[in-house]
Amino acid sequence: MSTVFQFQDWVIAHSQRAESALDRLLDSEKTIPHRLHEAMRYAAQGGGKRIRPLLVYAAGQLGNSINEQADQEKNAALDAAAVAIECIHAYSLVHDDLPCMDDDDLRRGRPTVHKAFDEATALLVGDALQTRAFEILANAKCDANIRLAMISALAAASGSRGMAGGQAIDLESVGKKLDLDGLKQMHAMKTGALLSCATALGGIAAGLSPAQMTQLLVYSEALGLAFQVVDDVLDATADSQTLGKTAGKDAAANKPTYVTLMGLDYAQKQAKTLQETASASLKEFGSKSAALKDLALLVVNRAK
Amino acid sequence: MSTVFQFQDWVIAHSQRAESALDRLLDSEKTIPHRLHEAMRYAAQGGGKRIRPLLVYAAGQLGNSINEQADQEKNAALDAAAVAIECIHAYSLVHDDLPCMDDDDLRRGRPTVHKAFDEATALLVGDALQTRAFEILANAKCDANIRLAMISALAAASGSRGMAGGQAIDLESVGKKLDLDGLKQMHAMKTGALLSCATALGGIAAGLSPAQMTQLLVYSEALGLAFQVVDDVLDATADSQTLGKTAGKDAAANKPTYVTLMGLDYAQKQAKTLQETASASLKEFGSKSAALKDLALLVVNRAK
Repeated sequence: MSTVFQFQDWVIAHSQRAESALDRLLDSEKTIPHRLHEAMRYAAQGGGKRIRPLLVYAAGQLGNSINEQADQEKNAALDAAAVAIECIHAYSLVHDDLPCMDDDDLRRGRPTVHKAFDEATALLVGDALQTRAFEILANAKCDANIRLAMISALAAASGSRGMAGGQAIDLESVGKKLDLDGLKQMHAMKTGALLSCATALGGIAAGLSPAQMTQLLVYSEALGLAFQVVDDVLDATADSQTLGKTAGKDAAANKPTYVTLMGLDYAQKQAKTLQETASASLKEFGSKSAALKDLALLVVNRAK
Repeated sequence: MSTVFQFQDWVIAHSQRAESALDRLLDSEKTIPHRLHEAMRYAAQGGGKRIRPLLVYAAGQLGNSINEQADQEKNAALDAAAVAIECIHAYSLVHDDLPCMDDDDLRRGRPTVHKAFDEATALLVGDALQTRAFEILANAKCDANIRLAMISALAAASGSRGMAGGQAIDLESVGKKLDLDGLKQMHAMKTGALLSCATALGGIAAGLSPAQMTQLLVYSEALGLAFQVVDDVLDATADSQTLGKTAGKDAAANKPTYVTLMGLDYAQKQAKTLQETASASLKEFGSKSAALKDLALLVVNRAK
């Protein structure tokens, strides 16, 4: 009981930390061009679960404290990473929602950016949020090699061999019968790569060893897969109001999902197994991994 | 006579160097997803004047040679910068050509990416080319602080306070009567920032002093303005076949241009004056600035 309560406190504290870092590191609406900056804030600050920033902060706790100066640099690196990855996530949502992609009117319970503003602005919002992500990492107040390692990891996870590539495969898969391996590869790129990157950024900021980074990767790959399985379960079972976005779209578009390929029962069991694999991979970190373990539970048990 | 000839050789050699670096640093079409990588190459390797890479290389010649190791690192930095800035330029063209922006069918004499492929692919091509630009700089085989300075400069020039911001202002200006100062600010962000960035990246790679970087900035700001004035002159006087893109679009869209605000004669004289200002700013660099000076002439005298 007390663990659950502490984790809830941790989530609230670190969500607030992420919101505050976003507010500090995004350009003000008072900066020219006003409307573009207003729309960028609308896209990035419109709520959401902040799973990726929370993963950054949770992975950042796996390292050891050396001295005050090092802690300060680590915290600067973590804030930059949390905002950068959320900017990348937000840009991908804004572009995915455009008419030429998923053509969605609703996101996080509010009109999508191209509905609240216009299509051309939404295009530029996504473009500029991506740029800002790399700018924030390049200018973070921490060691040069840590900044470069974070930029390199974020670019690899979000570019044509990661998130954007997964999107391209997803587009090609509509109406086709992807098998389970094909579906896994697509999701590993489309959503898994960025989720893995979140924990990797935290690990880089915390100065983890290569062996520790590998353990973290086992965690995040299992988590990424669990995340998508649960997404498909929710898309098949929840309503649009609960989700804050249009439900049942995959089925309507005749897209393959874990639920259509595995069945609902098996998909739910699979999500649980993946969460256990993720937690087990963190054994060596002991109590420092409590937040990451609880985040895996949160991902699997979420209702939206 | 011999100077002109040497410059032509220099342009050919360095255009080829840029093409070869692009070919080496872009993902192969054999990499999954094949179609996305094919479209990224179509967008980035479809010709064009390669003005930005040439500016990178020309500014890179302003520094002094120290030793072989330093020269090797400088060349790696210059190749990375040349490709990165061309990826950013190419991404901006692909997104600008989309139906929700300029809705153009023709670019560099070929179908635009969304015509040759499809809109969703064009969106992802632009997104992934931007990501690749930062990834290439982060992984360049040169000093960490040089890489970070280049990433920071490229992000500032291309994001919401640079190129993307200029686009947003341009969108808002359709049908409005921008005055000359408003037009200058819009172009300084929309095209000037990235042109200035090209010479700045070359200067960073070459290890120029802050005072030298300032002289370079005077050059590139004059060049950027000249470039746009000439663009407007060509849009008003040349035909689509010569330009390789749709001519007369600005007039048709009732957009303000230097020609409509200054008149054709004055705009042509202004371009010449700006070229002279650009060249004069490089006096202290002596013969090392020959390529930059000739590039300014090339920009002002181009026919497309």
